Amino acid sequence: MASSSYSNSPCAACKFLRRKCMPDCIFAPYFPPEEPQKFANVHKIFGASNVSKLLNEVLPHQREDAVNSLAYEAEARMKDPVYGCVGAISVLQRQVIRLQKELDATNADLIRYACNEMPAANPQFARRMGHGRGFL
Amino acid sequence: MASSSYSNSPCAACKFLRRKCMPDCIFAPYFPPEEPQKFANVHKIFGASNVSKLLNEVLPHQREDAVNSLAYEAEARMKDPVYGCVGAISVLQRQVIRLQKELDATNADLIRYACNEMPAANPQFARRMGHGRGFL
Repeated sequence: MASSSYSNSPCAACKFLRRKCMPDCIFAPYFPPEEPQKFANVHKIFGASNVSKLLNEVLPHQREDAVNSLAYEAEARMKDPVYGCVGAISVLQRQVIRLQKELDATNADLIRYACNEMPAANPQFARRMGHGRGFL
Repeated sequence: MASSSYSNSPCAACKFLRRKCMPDCIFAPYFPPEEPQKFANVHKIFGASNVSKLLNEVLPHQREDAVNSLAYEAEARMKDPVYGCVGAISVLQRQVIRLQKELDATNADLIRYACNEMPAANPQFARRMGHGRGFL
């Protein structure tokens, strides 16, 4: 849920930018005063003006998701200035390739079993039986 | 490899920003004039000043990777303004969970076979034998 902290205190964005938080502030619903770091991060990485432009380009019901994905990207970039969240994509892509290979090999073992061969003679099968994820 | 298009034409960044491209231009090695869209994208999403700051914060040998990851993020955000490359992370995370479940189930079938049970009676196994990724 987007926060509706319009009340007394300015939103985290207006506080950061030292400006008056108006009732129609584009940032206020998504940057509550209790989370100052969220705005500080997206401001450092994308800039307040770019975030404001992007929020105006998407539909109101999409804005919370847009802000949260920007905040995720900004935090990732601050933790890893070289790769940002693209580093996480690379890790996940390698994990998908590894799991797919392991699944293909396990399926091949299963076919050999179904054909009454003895895959225990296969060193890769023996390794998986001993160390495979499913058996630990 | 970073391009070294210092020669006659200004780099894509300086051309975009309509400024003189100096020999020590921080953008020139990574934004060759032949790829104008690369700079246009990172400028729209991050802003030239933020990109320049980030390049100055990382080591020279890391700058090409940093620019390429920024260009990837920027392109993803332009294609999907709501989720950007965080959308790709979600897709990959779901794929990892699905593959891990499928691998666990296949390993369980394999164990049943190894214990001389007949997993063909198991509808999930039969489904995988018919439609599993490894068999198509």
